[in-house]
Formats: sequence, structure tokens, C-alpha cells
Amino acid sequence: MSSSKQETIRSTPPKGTRDFLPDEACLRDWACDKIKETYREFGYSSIETPAIENIKLLKRGEGGENLQLIFEILKRGEKLEKATSGNGSEMDLSDFGLRFDLTVPLVRYYANNVNDLPTPFKAIQIGPVWRAERPQKGRYRQFTQCDIDIIGQKTRFAELDLLNASSCALKKLGLNDFTIRINDRAFLQEIARYCQFAEDSWDKVFIAIDKLDKIGIDGIKSELSSQNHSESSINKLLDLFSKVEPVLSDTTISGLDQVSVLKEALAVITNQEKIEELKELIGALSQNADGYSVKFDPTLVRGMGYYTGPIFEASVPGYNFSVAGGGRYDNMIGKFLGRDVPACGFSIGFERVITVLQETQSKAGYKPELLALIYDEKRDTYEPVMKALIELRKSGKKVSLMPKRKDLKKQLDQIKEQGVIKFCIFKGDPENLDIKELD
Amino acid sequence: MSSSKQETIRSTPPKGTRDFLPDEACLRDWACDKIKETYREFGYSSIETPAIENIKLLKRGEGGENLQLIFEILKRGEKLEKATSGNGSEMDLSDFGLRFDLTVPLVRYYANNVNDLPTPFKAIQIGPVWRAERPQKGRYRQFTQCDIDIIGQKTRFAELDLLNASSCALKKLGLNDFTIRINDRAFLQEIARYCQFAEDSWDKVFIAIDKLDKIGIDGIKSELSSQNHSESSINKLLDLFSKVEPVLSDTTISGLDQVSVLKEALAVITNQEKIEELKELIGALSQNADGYSVKFDPTLVRGMGYYTGPIFEASVPGYNFSVAGGGRYDNMIGKFLGRDVPACGFSIGFERVITVLQETQSKAGYKPELLALIYDEKRDTYEPVMKALIELRKSGKKVSLMPKRKDLKKQLDQIKEQGVIKFCIFKGDPENLDIKELD
Repeated sequence: MSSSKQETIRSTPPKGTRDFLPDEACLRDWACDKIKETYREFGYSSIETPAIENIKLLKRGEGGENLQLIFEILKRGEKLEKATSGNGSEMDLSDFGLRFDLTVPLVRYYANNVNDLPTPFKAIQIGPVWRAERPQKGRYRQFTQCDIDIIGQKTRFAELDLLNASSCALKKLGLNDFTIRINDRAFLQEIARYCQFAEDSWDKVFIAIDKLDKIGIDGIKSELSSQNHSESSINKLLDLFSKVEPVLSDTTISGLDQVSVLKEALAVITNQEKIEELKELIGALSQNADGYSVKFDPTLVRGMGYYTGPIFEASVPGYNFSVAGGGRYDNMIGKFLGRDVPACGFSIGFERVITVLQETQSKAGYKPELLALIYDEKRDTYEPVMKALIELRKSGKKVSLMPKRKDLKKQLDQIKEQGVIKFCIFKGDPENLDIKELD
Repeated sequence: MSSSKQETIRSTPPKGTRDFLPDEACLRDWACDKIKETYREFGYSSIETPAIENIKLLKRGEGGENLQLIFEILKRGEKLEKATSGNGSEMDLSDFGLRFDLTVPLVRYYANNVNDLPTPFKAIQIGPVWRAERPQKGRYRQFTQCDIDIIGQKTRFAELDLLNASSCALKKLGLNDFTIRINDRAFLQEIARYCQFAEDSWDKVFIAIDKLDKIGIDGIKSELSSQNHSESSINKLLDLFSKVEPVLSDTTISGLDQVSVLKEALAVITNQEKIEELKELIGALSQNADGYSVKFDPTLVRGMGYYTGPIFEASVPGYNFSVAGGGRYDNMIGKFLGRDVPACGFSIGFERVITVLQETQSKAGYKPELLALIYDEKRDTYEPVMKALIELRKSGKKVSLMPKRKDLKKQLDQIKEQGVIKFCIFKGDPENLDIKELD
């Protein structure tokens, strides 16, 4: 075949998406397997929904700014013809869209299959989602999400289950030393109400509070001062957080002690029963928390508006992003089913975890330990090579067949990268295999 | 929240796509893991490409009728405005599309990353593809493909490697008794040439040949007679296949003996060296073939036009579809790289395998063996429940926390379905756990 006449086609993937080389794909597979395996061992069940959903479902709200980022799928055939015959700006050109998260599909799935699902329902979802972001460093148009959710359980036992299972999953990945911070949106609202901020400005206030660890009390002060709040509200808030801040920045204090101190600091405003329950939850989780810690953080906000109760976030020291997060969203499923169904979810930020693992995991941890059986394509025949392979596999080895390349030394260097730890240069006799360690 | 005022939204997935309930999703996960694990043990490496590709790439050919079935993704923002301001039928509305197979992305990936990949490159790809089929029974708009490919190896050692690894994967899934049939497109061409069919009618002739096992010699005769071929061509072909047919329908003959007999029957036309090599290949594969068989089948065609050499298909008795198939495609990658690169692939029909497994696999085979720790949400507190969970997990058990439901008997029946084999009704004391078998 002569290829010179063919038009050259770009071989890069679409802007903002990625090809994964074998090394990274192997790490991703390994991490995905570990997470799934752990969740299964805690009684969560995988579900699968299509990557495409009806465009009306995707556009109906709940998605916040993600609604602006939907990849829409063009209608086809007659429907497309009909749509394009209309007026430019009013054309209704799409019927489906790519999902932008796993929560909207989960909620639809639950409504669609409720009669076949147990109560409570403990679901695992791992899969890609798509957002039409402007391509930029660290923002991808396709990325993997990794969620567990408990649907149909009102009590905080659901939070206990989710947080415990997720902590174990993060530990299985080799992450240690992470901190899970917990808050309740009810506390945030109580704080805003106590300080008498106007209700339509609460979101802005929360955004400022969320930054306490980064910008400090002074930073919050100047951020709020630049907005349109009464001075007394700002002062009340600063007063409160000047008591909270030292507790949060004290890394020596245990999770339980911390809740007690914060309970006192927030005594003027918070629902004491709620904070006591949070303390119990943190206490129960801390029993298992070797290598990580669970803390109350009244400055934790979480972006999505659909959360209705406890919210949580996990972070790893040395990284300025969280690796997991979630919360309770009791109102979302009701919109489908016409009756309220409590729900709570926790999502591991898969891409972020991979970023951390690439820097912390040794390759030996996730690569298969292979033996390379290197044959000579010009000399060897199929049968003895196959016989040798069968013998080696019978002895329990994982064997990769490989043709000998011209530069054997270079080849041996390269296959180490692929996870090969032993090799055998085939000499024609399957009864006589000389296995060597690759070092 | 009152939901009565909300517009009701359809909770079914888009037409032609499916939600998978936990039981089926679990089987799919299990099968996917088994296949991937097996391929990894043979030295294949996972790769990952995005689900979306540039629309120009997808539309440039090679895809056959799949080109008519591309889900196209609507342009966004200014680009969309510009596109819709044009004339109806000439609007260029899409910039990306959903992949319709894994071969086009693999070829692009190889061209894009060739300098970072070993030679030969042994790749695994498992993932969904999308085709805008008219929804009908058994045809899905999203389905999973499961491919391995060897890129950069000219010799039939690549076929040996692919077919051996795939056979092992099918066996790991519990499939036995399957038959792998092998042919070479060169033989088909030789037959057509020998019978002096007009070259532009070959595809039709091949389609008829492909049906021999279903419609018999007489069926082929009437199908070809209804077309525009010379009688002498038809007679030559029928003459040839009247010798071939009895050999193919003889199930007692071994793969190797079969090749010898067919070699004789086809002696007038085929390249004897090629058929001898095929015999060697079948002989080598048969050494490992306990429970399945490998056979030469000169009536095997395979649809895709891009195959250039050996082609293969695996089938399971009792099902009228193949469960896997593939072949050599030496010309495809050259179109990107401007130099020829040999390639060969084998694809397990994941959806079909799942159909077979649903009828043959016992649930015990793919479900996790869980212990249900059943607590009372109203009475129990977090800490002792968590302590009990930790104790049970320390003893190596996989434990699902579950709140007690009103009807315990019904609950116990339901959780069996979820893979629970033991249960423990928590009585408040983590030191004293009464574990029972669930029967």
C-alpha cells in the first residue's frame, strides 16, 4: 500500500481530552480495581447507566454551572432536517447529551428501577463524565468519577457507612495521613442567621468562610468588607471565627477533642443536639482511623447547592486540592418519584487521586510481574514456543510472548518498564528453559 | 419539599440504551475483570482513549456502514452560531463524535504515541462504543467492546499470541466447548479467482459462501443463481464446496486432520505454503486446547473490508452468533504514519458473552461472599456498630452494614440476592456476635 496519496489526518485526540500511555493506564486500572473491590467488600453494588442521557433530563437543573458545559448530541435523519429548517437561533438541534456527572444519572436510575432495588440501596458508580470546558491545564473534557451513594436511609448511619468505606478505599490505594473534614450545611446557615447576613448574600458569605485556611481571618475581613454587608454582621462573624480558627489550625488536637472545643465556641448559635451527633459520628469513625483523621470543620462549604445536611471532604497533606468529597442530598430524588427519598453520597476525585499516586506509588505496586519468553521469529516454529509457554504458565507464571529484537540489551531495558521481572531467551527446546531475573 | 409542582420527567434512559441492575452489572464487572486480568497475564497493556474523537477522523472511512451511525456532537458557542447562520442542508454542525468502534481510536492512538510504545505493541482496550442504530431487540446504541491487538508484528506469531490469550480468557469466563475457526482472506480471493467470478462481485460471492453452514450447498446455489454470475463460475464453486462441506460438518475430526483433508480438497487453488503455515498455527494452538477446538474454515468471511490476512471467529454451541472475532489488518495504520505497520486484533463480543453467561453462570461464581451486619437504627449507636464491623473485618470477612427492616424474614430473603451468605443481627455488644449462615 502506498500511503503518500492519502490526506494526512491529525492523530491527536480532541482538545481537552487525553490518550493514556500503558504506564498511566495501568495505574488507573489498578486504582479503579482497588476502589471497586473495597466498596464491594462493604456491600455496595455496581450499577451502570448509559453515557448519554435525554437532553431534557440533563438541562432541567441541579447541575449548576455544569449546565453550560453539556456536550449535546445532534439529532439525526428526519428529526435533524426538521430542526435545521427552522430559524437559526431557535433551532432545537439535540436530543441527547453526554452526562456531566454521575449524580443526575443515579437519581434517574433510582426512579426508573426503584421496584427492583433494595432499601437502603448502596450503589457504586465509576465511569467517565464530560464537560465542554475551555481546554486549560488540569481541566479535562473527559474525566473519571468514582461515587458511592446510599439511597433511602435517613439516619447518619449512612454517613458512617460511606465515610468508613471510602477511608478504607483511600487506604487501599496507599494514601495515608489524609484528613476527612465534616460539616453540616445546617451549621453554616445557623452562623449566617446568627450574624444576621441578608439571606440572598449567604452564598457569598459561605464562599468567604470556605477560604479561612487559605486567607485567614484578615482575608475574610477584607473579602466581606468589599461586599455589601452590614458592619455588625461582619464583626459578629469575625468574632466567631477568631475562636474557631486556632482550633482548626491546631494539628495536635484529636478529632473528638476538637469537636468538644468547637462545640463550646459555637455554643451561642448551633443546634447542640446536631453537634453532639456529629461528635458521636466522628468518634465512631476514629476507632478505625489508623493513619488518617476525621475532624469537624465548620468552615467547610462544598459548592453544589443540592446538599441538605452533612457534607464532607478528604484531603492529603502537601496537595492544595481535596481528593474526595460528598454530602447528603435528601431532596433530589423526590423530584422524580413524587415522594421524598433521603440520599447521601461520597465521591473520590479519581483524576486527583491519580495525580497523587503518580508521585507516591512505586511502579512495582501496580504492575503485573511478568516473565518474558523471548523467541526468534526467523528461527523458531509455533509449536515449541507454545509448548514452552504452556509449561511456564503451568508453573504459575504470567508469561508475555515477545519476539527477539535486534538490540537485545535495549529490549531488556525497555521491557522492565512493562512490568517484566524475569526473562527467558528461548533456545528451541521447551524442556530446557533458562529463566533469569531482570535487574 | 413538595414535589407535586415539579414537572414530571421521564426516568427511562435514552431509547436503545440500558440501565443495568446490580445483578447484571456485577456479572459484567466480573467478566470484564476476568478478561482484563487474563490479558494482562499474557503481557498485554491497557490503554485508554477518549470516548469522543474528532468528527473528521471518524468520517474518513474504514468504518463501512458504521459511518452512517455516528452520534455527532454539536458545536458550541460562537462556532455553533457561525454554523447555524449558514444554509440548512450544508450546515457543518458537529466537531466531535462518539467512537463507533475501538479500532479507529487504536490506530489514531498508535500514530499519536508511536515513539513511546514498544514494538510489537500488545494492547488491551475495553470500553463502550456508540452507534445510532434504529432501536430494536438485541441492538443497542451503547455497547461494550473488548479488544486486544498486536501492532508491529508481521509474522503469524501475533495470531498465535492473540488466539491463545483470547482462548484462555474465554475459558476463564467458564465458557468451554467453543470452537475457534480460522481462515485467510487470501484463500477466499484465490477461490473467487479460480472460479473466475468478476472481481466486483466478489463481496456478494463471499457473503453467499459465509452462509454454507446455514443454507447448505443448495442454498448457495440458489443465492448465486439469483445474481449475475456465469454458470461455469457457479458450478466450479459448488464443485469445490461439495468437497469442503462434509469435512466442515464432521465434528469428530480433529483440527489438524481437518486442515490436511481441506488442503487436499483445495489443492487446485490455494497457496500450499500458506495453508501449511495455517496448519502449523492450528497445531500449536491445539496443544493448549482442552475444552475447545481450533479449526480451519474456508467459508469464514468476516464483514469488515479492512482485513488483509488471517481472520478468525469463536462460537459457542447452541448459540447462533459468534462470541469473538478478529483478523489481520496490515494497511490501516500506514494511512496515518505514512509507512506500513502490520497489525492484528481479536475482539470478544462482550454483550454476547454476557448473554451466554447469564444462562450458564451460577450467581455464586461472580458475587462477593458478604456477611450482613444488621443493626437497629432506632436503638443502636454508631460506636458499637462500628466496633463490631471492625472486629468482623479483622477476621477477614467482607461485611455489609445494613439497617434492620420491619420484616426481617423478607429482608433476609432479599439480601441473599445481593450475595450475602452469612448474617449477624447486632444485639448491642460488639464482643458477642452471633453469626449465622443464610440458607
